[in-house]
Amino acid sequence: MRDRKPEAGEAMDPEEDESYVDYHYDDPGTMPGTLSIDKNAPPPEIHLIDYDAEQSTGRRVEHPEELTPYLDNHSVSWVDVRGFGSEDILRRLGKVFGLHPLVLEDIVNVPQRPKVEEYKDHLLIIARMVCPTSETAEAFFSEQVSLILGKSYLLTVQEEAKFDVFGPVRERIRTAKGIICHQRADYLAYTLLDAIVDGFYPVLEDFGERIEALEAEVVENPTRGTLERIYLLRRELLMLRRAIWPQRDVINALIRDANPLIGEEVRVYLRDCYDHAIQIIDMVETYRELASSLTDIYMSSVSNRMNEVMKTLTVISAIFIPLTFIAGVYGMNFDPEKSPWNMPELEWYWGYPYSLVLMLSVAVGLVIYFWRRGWFESFSRVKK
Amino acid sequence: MRDRKPEAGEAMDPEEDESYVDYHYDDPGTMPGTLSIDKNAPPPEIHLIDYDAEQSTGRRVEHPEELTPYLDNHSVSWVDVRGFGSEDILRRLGKVFGLHPLVLEDIVNVPQRPKVEEYKDHLLIIARMVCPTSETAEAFFSEQVSLILGKSYLLTVQEEAKFDVFGPVRERIRTAKGIICHQRADYLAYTLLDAIVDGFYPVLEDFGERIEALEAEVVENPTRGTLERIYLLRRELLMLRRAIWPQRDVINALIRDANPLIGEEVRVYLRDCYDHAIQIIDMVETYRELASSLTDIYMSSVSNRMNEVMKTLTVISAIFIPLTFIAGVYGMNFDPEKSPWNMPELEWYWGYPYSLVLMLSVAVGLVIYFWRRGWFESFSRVKK
Amino acid sequence: MRDRKPEAGEAMDPEEDESYVDYHYDDPGTMPGTLSIDKNAPPPEIHLIDYDAEQSTGRRVEHPEELTPYLDNHSVSWVDVRGFGSEDILRRLGKVFGLHPLVLEDIVNVPQRPKVEEYKDHLLIIARMVCPTSETAEAFFSEQVSLILGKSYLLTVQEEAKFDVFGPVRERIRTAKGIICHQRADYLAYTLLDAIVDGFYPVLEDFGERIEALEAEVVENPTRGTLERIYLLRRELLMLRRAIWPQRDVINALIRDANPLIGEEVRVYLRDCYDHAIQIIDMVETYRELASSLTDIYMSSVSNRMNEVMKTLTVISAIFIPLTFIAGVYGMNFDPEKSPWNMPELEWYWGYPYSLVLMLSVAVGLVIYFWRRGWFESFSRVKK
Amino acid sequence: MRDRKPEAGEAMDPEEDESYVDYHYDDPGTMPGTLSIDKNAPPPEIHLIDYDAEQSTGRRVEHPEELTPYLDNHSVSWVDVRGFGSEDILRRLGKVFGLHPLVLEDIVNVPQRPKVEEYKDHLLIIARMVCPTSETAEAFFSEQVSLILGKSYLLTVQEEAKFDVFGPVRERIRTAKGIICHQRADYLAYTLLDAIVDGFYPVLEDFGERIEALEAEVVENPTRGTLERIYLLRRELLMLRRAIWPQRDVINALIRDANPLIGEEVRVYLRDCYDHAIQIIDMVETYRELASSLTDIYMSSVSNRMNEVMKTLTVISAIFIPLTFIAGVYGMNFDPEKSPWNMPELEWYWGYPYSLVLMLSVAVGLVIYFWRRGWFESFSRVKK
Amino acid sequence: MRDRKPEAGEAMDPEEDESYVDYHYDDPGTMPGTLSIDKNAPPPEIHLIDYDAEQSTGRRVEHPEELTPYLDNHSVSWVDVRGFGSEDILRRLGKVFGLHPLVLEDIVNVPQRPKVEEYKDHLLIIARMVCPTSETAEAFFSEQVSLILGKSYLLTVQEEAKFDVFGPVRERIRTAKGIICHQRADYLAYTLLDAIVDGFYPVLEDFGERIEALEAEVVENPTRGTLERIYLLRRELLMLRRAIWPQRDVINALIRDANPLIGEEVRVYLRDCYDHAIQIIDMVETYRELASSLTDIYMSSVSNRMNEVMKTLTVISAIFIPLTFIAGVYGMNFDPEKSPWNMPELEWYWGYPYSLVLMLSVAVGLVIYFWRRGWFESFSRVKK
Repeated sequence: MRDRKPEAGEAMDPEEDESYVDYHYDDPGTMPGTLSIDKNAPPPEIHLIDYDAEQSTGRRVEHPEELTPYLDNHSVSWVDVRGFGSEDILRRLGKVFGLHPLVLEDIVNVPQRPKVEEYKDHLLIIARMVCPTSETAEAFFSEQVSLILGKSYLLTVQEEAKFDVFGPVRERIRTAKGIICHQRADYLAYTLLDAIVDGFYPVLEDFGERIEALEAEVVENPTRGTLERIYLLRRELLMLRRAIWPQRDVINALIRDANPLIGEEVRVYLRDCYDHAIQIIDMVETYRELASSLTDIYMSSVSNRMNEVMKTLTVISAIFIPLTFIAGVYGMNFDPEKSPWNMPELEWYWGYPYSLVLMLSVAVGLVIYFWRRGWFESFSRVKK
Repeated sequence: MRDRKPEAGEAMDPEEDESYVDYHYDDPGTMPGTLSIDKNAPPPEIHLIDYDAEQSTGRRVEHPEELTPYLDNHSVSWVDVRGFGSEDILRRLGKVFGLHPLVLEDIVNVPQRPKVEEYKDHLLIIARMVCPTSETAEAFFSEQVSLILGKSYLLTVQEEAKFDVFGPVRERIRTAKGIICHQRADYLAYTLLDAIVDGFYPVLEDFGERIEALEAEVVENPTRGTLERIYLLRRELLMLRRAIWPQRDVINALIRDANPLIGEEVRVYLRDCYDHAIQIIDMVETYRELASSLTDIYMSSVSNRMNEVMKTLTVISAIFIPLTFIAGVYGMNFDPEKSPWNMPELEWYWGYPYSLVLMLSVAVGLVIYFWRRGWFESFSRVKK
Repeated sequence: MRDRKPEAGEAMDPEEDESYVDYHYDDPGTMPGTLSIDKNAPPPEIHLIDYDAEQSTGRRVEHPEELTPYLDNHSVSWVDVRGFGSEDILRRLGKVFGLHPLVLEDIVNVPQRPKVEEYKDHLLIIARMVCPTSETAEAFFSEQVSLILGKSYLLTVQEEAKFDVFGPVRERIRTAKGIICHQRADYLAYTLLDAIVDGFYPVLEDFGERIEALEAEVVENPTRGTLERIYLLRRELLMLRRAIWPQRDVINALIRDANPLIGEEVRVYLRDCYDHAIQIIDMVETYRELASSLTDIYMSSVSNRMNEVMKTLTVISAIFIPLTFIAGVYGMNFDPEKSPWNMPELEWYWGYPYSLVLMLSVAVGLVIYFWRRGWFESFSRVKK
Repeated sequence: MRDRKPEAGEAMDPEEDESYVDYHYDDPGTMPGTLSIDKNAPPPEIHLIDYDAEQSTGRRVEHPEELTPYLDNHSVSWVDVRGFGSEDILRRLGKVFGLHPLVLEDIVNVPQRPKVEEYKDHLLIIARMVCPTSETAEAFFSEQVSLILGKSYLLTVQEEAKFDVFGPVRERIRTAKGIICHQRADYLAYTLLDAIVDGFYPVLEDFGERIEALEAEVVENPTRGTLERIYLLRRELLMLRRAIWPQRDVINALIRDANPLIGEEVRVYLRDCYDHAIQIIDMVETYRELASSLTDIYMSSVSNRMNEVMKTLTVISAIFIPLTFIAGVYGMNFDPEKSPWNMPELEWYWGYPYSLVLMLSVAVGLVIYFWRRGWFESFSRVKK
Repeated sequence: MRDRKPEAGEAMDPEEDESYVDYHYDDPGTMPGTLSIDKNAPPPEIHLIDYDAEQSTGRRVEHPEELTPYLDNHSVSWVDVRGFGSEDILRRLGKVFGLHPLVLEDIVNVPQRPKVEEYKDHLLIIARMVCPTSETAEAFFSEQVSLILGKSYLLTVQEEAKFDVFGPVRERIRTAKGIICHQRADYLAYTLLDAIVDGFYPVLEDFGERIEALEAEVVENPTRGTLERIYLLRRELLMLRRAIWPQRDVINALIRDANPLIGEEVRVYLRDCYDHAIQIIDMVETYRELASSLTDIYMSSVSNRMNEVMKTLTVISAIFIPLTFIAGVYGMNFDPEKSPWNMPELEWYWGYPYSLVLMLSVAVGLVIYFWRRGWFESFSRVKK
């Protein structure tokens, strides 16, 4: 993503971020529960990690039905599905986990707004994961992660296999490091939510750097592209804001609602996660105010420039126009021979020097006048 | 609607959208319960669809009284009335369904604000349906749909027969597809509300395309018409916003209030519908912020252009005015014969070439000066 | 009011609307219950309408004491007092109806903020009535109406006899039309409140027309007066907003608070009235946003105009200044006889035509340059 | 204060209103209960008014201890302390009235934010009193009034003896006019709070007049000083707003909280006082919006003026520059004797008249062109 | 800090305040409880102050384990840790005080958002301390202070040893002055929180001075640097705001939540502290509004300046261009000998004086014209 910041002069391409502007929708009147899968969706990969305090095993699963034995045993089973390129497999997954048709719809018809919904024996958490990347056209990679938390399992469904922020968690389970292996599925869900929320920080850091770059640019060399970049920044901050605000509500609901699937101890950890969400919201709002202030400075920089241009024109015009007039006067053809009053200066011995001195005096007078009004100061102040 | 986006240069016609700016009102002091029907309202068509899990029949009804037997039987009866061009028929409908005079007033005196009201044995839901269309002058077609939900029937009243978003639902009932036929009238009401809410998505998509087009226009070729189009967009977003916000409250009230006419299972579905309403509100607010930012860019584009114009004037004036002055000096008529100090240059052997070189030096000096201050850069940057 | 819309060029007169900017206040420290009656207040007229389901009688009353027998009987007595030009009569009225000193103060010391207050055996409702008119200097006529609702009577007090919106209600009672005659005093209070709220609609319609006129004006011919009219509009919308918001709270309080003076059935009707208040608030807020957007367009129209002016100046200057310079060069007086290098062009056979062709080429070149940069397009686009 | 409105051209002096920008603060870490009295604080004057339904006596007290017998008797004792120039007397007062150290701190370390705090046997009310005055540098006089309400006494502490709004109340007690003498201390507290709140009205009236003056100024003759005055107005409105908002909360808390020191009847009166606070807030907010709109008009007036200036320059330049060019052409020195093509016009019989007619035609043509584009209209519209 | 206010002309350096823009974050997926200590963090110093009503002792402690005996005794033990440059010592501290891993993480991974969290036998309070300083690059020094309140001890952890606002508190304990020595640990916590909140006042005073300086600058001599300083001010006010708002919530939570560690009496004191936090928020919001208004004045000052420049240009051009034209006419070379109509003025006896008078008349006429339109007034008004 650091490499992706739009370059100066690069035009705004409104097409590129369509994916995170629009929510998913079906044609009005479509039957509830209809799955509408994008044709380009990658085929699903199902990864299973099963662990308890003593051991952990991970393997790739081909058929959803193979998962059934894991759902009831005492170890924690994390089923991670990446990609929904096969409606058949998704429906079979739904059957294995006993999902309500609306749950399956929410998982697949991305993007949905982050939310939490309680069902009889599981909890659906829709979250949005972002991470900085230079491989996509957008300023950051963004995908929906759906978490279905059961008593001893956690099913996560991601849009793609390419990016996620769960690597360190997998590593910790694999190496049996930390307390995670002594905990139940709710702790795993917390860990993943925490990773998702913390994933906003590096994206925000990129935004912070872009704001700093724009601050410098707007002061030193504001061009038309600067404003476009400010506009793009504001638009992307709107997107980020729309992603994080409901996430805060999700975490708050998990802390507050007395669902038996979430243990008391995990709620303590979730408070920490909630604090992070609030911090991120604080920063997004701060950045939005800064971006809005930048527009003001930009406008003022442009006005200042025009002021400089006008001053230049005025100083040069105001000095030379009177001089040209004087020269014009002595270029008149009144005939000195017809009358002693007709342009006697032309025949003076010091006539020409006198006229040059006259012009010089006028010019010097005007320069002093402008100088005392401070118009020359700014000339030297403008470096560029 | 795609064809309807106002063209560049097309003037804003404030008349055209009057219908969705104003709410309905009668003269102050009019008796409550008075029906004030627009003279141009189309005559009502009454369509009946009666279905249960086994069969479904649909037919057109001439006299409201024919509906009486359907209201109490065990199948679900959907009575869809389109148009209110006959006060007589509407009053007879009111009698058949036992409607409070205020209910009838709310149904007919359109537009009303979306709301839900509980009566003894039915529930009144006022909703607003929008759909994109190129057949009307407005950017989108918009009409009021009133739903009266009873125990085993659903009465819907629309302003016109021309457009609605219920086609797929009728089709599903006719072909007995989906679970709809196994459900009661409350599920039908949910299905229609869901179709109404989802109907906002294609309209919003049109707005999204207009914003993208304006983004390009404002940067590449801002004209006076651009700002008008931004203004029109902001005005129409205000309309859309006014339509969707109360709709959200309607759905929320249906979920929250413990009305026995809405079953527990249908509340689960309504939550989904509520999420969609929130998504639409999110998008409307985002679009409003973007439209507001576009105004800023527009203003700045105009300022930038003026800057270019001023620079052009300044560069040309600043270069030629001093030259003209020099030419003016050597056009003076001081008589060289009266004094050796009177314009001796005129009689030099290299006088004319010297003057041309002098002018050239001044011109080159100024060009270098302006070039080093970066004034020429922008000349090449402006393509148009 | 339709005739009253400020004409183009009419200056803003801040005096004229003082009456609805300021709330009433007494000198700080004045004794509570002091009546401060405007010297120009018209003398009170007391109108009594007494009706029940069978009959209705109306007559004018001179002495408040005559009303006593009506307060306790079973028919509904509507006492309508217009004008407070006599402190004596008002105090006697207070005694007859048993009003708290603060109630009398609220009625007389206009304007008060709309509110509802419960007393032991009556309810005080302060409302604000507006109606469009061309007879006053303001954009709309506005007066306070105080309603005191007792068990079987309703006392209404208006500032003036000239305007009110109660005509149709009186007519309905007189002709015994509608259900009003079968209802108690609370229904009468509802009917009047409903008429007051509905009275905002025609005023809003006037505002809507003014906004439409301003939309056209700001685009086609923005003058200095346009902005003043926008400002006036914004100021008057602020007034309207301040009048309707508390009215909404008043109606809501009547619906919600379990006061025995308001029957259950009337609450159903008040919900309808509440919806209207919300609609009016919606429209006021929408108009406020539109008025604010209009300011943006205005500013931009002014900028566009300046752009046109600058372009005109630049094109004419840029074309003629170089030409004048060329003419200046050939007006120099270098003596061709002193040297073959001194302005040989002057003695060429084709010298003069050559110089004219040179100037023409420069002019044509510049015109092409400006034309290709699109500066001439806008010349034709500006009609005015 | 009417005399104090800043004159046109008067510069903004940020020093002058420091007293109401800043809240009081001690050095961080100062011991709670420390009294930090301004060196210039006037010495305290203690005034006692003791009254019941039969009689009232007023006298000045030197030693706080003299007040002890009055605190427990059955008459109402109003102790009014003005000035805190003696820490000793204040501490003795605190002992006599049994005040918590924090209460004494809140009273003395002014300014504090208005608030109400309950203590065991008294109630502390911090209020802010404003009144218009021409004797101070600020736009209005503002001081803190602390009210300590006990069972049969009311202690009020003011910063200075010079101004207050309690005169009419004292007069009413002295002359035993009104119901005040039949009431307890809580009614006295209400009366004073009411006087304090009503004291905002004349200050607001001054603001209203300033806004009206600015409205006229901004349209007729906007100068640089105008904007400074708008800024000053906005700043002072912020101050006023900060004073009245918490006051509303204070009164609301008194009405709502079931403190036995405030009788039921007095709560009815406080509702009236609360309404006034709301009205004042309404007006402050309205004024703030108006002041903000004035800035827009100002900016636009300045733009309009620049437009006029540019038009003047353009019209004059555009007319004379081509004429000067023509004159320049016929000032060229091509030698007619060398060639018949060299400026034959110079030797025509009608050459000079022809050239004058040519110039006149060009000038008239341009004037018509500008006139048809409407540029002259605005010249006449600018009166100043 | 007084010395640190950015000088005029000093460029905005976005790097310098990075430390208070960003919240702390670890890589997404990091194990909860991980301590990430900045490499440059100073090594921790542990200071112990143990006191009761009779005596107080203070000493520096090397090993956290030495503190164990102090935690349970009856005197109040204040352990003040400054710097976290050693993970080992911090972990040992955590063990001694029995801290939850998340508590230790919140203490060390600065900056955190101010918050309060309850644990079984202690209370964690995260606060942000600011103080003005000229030793850092930022406008104010800002560090996190974590308070862990137990039954008889208070552990405070600061980022650095260099600055804090607790000096006077330590002094009061050392000299056994004030009631602090008779109170328990909760009173000590209040005292420190109070010192932290009061520490915002001097920082705000600095902001107030900067605003005043900017007010003067923006009116008298607005330069490009002025806007940068306004922007910097707005940005720093955003930071301050983000620090104080959650602090208010912290104090409110302490007052409201019935935690047994906070005594009833201390809650009374905390109300006072809460009032201060509200006051600070009031001032920050006021300053933000003022800073926003300053931007408006700046823009208008720039526009006014451009107006002056344009007027100067216009006056000089408009006066001399017609004169130059007249001179140009009499510089034409029509041959008077060829025709009596060819420039007869050239041969008049009073020709030259006549032409000079003509020019003078034109110039005087134009000066009068401009003078009457008021264009010269403003020339004298601009001092600079």
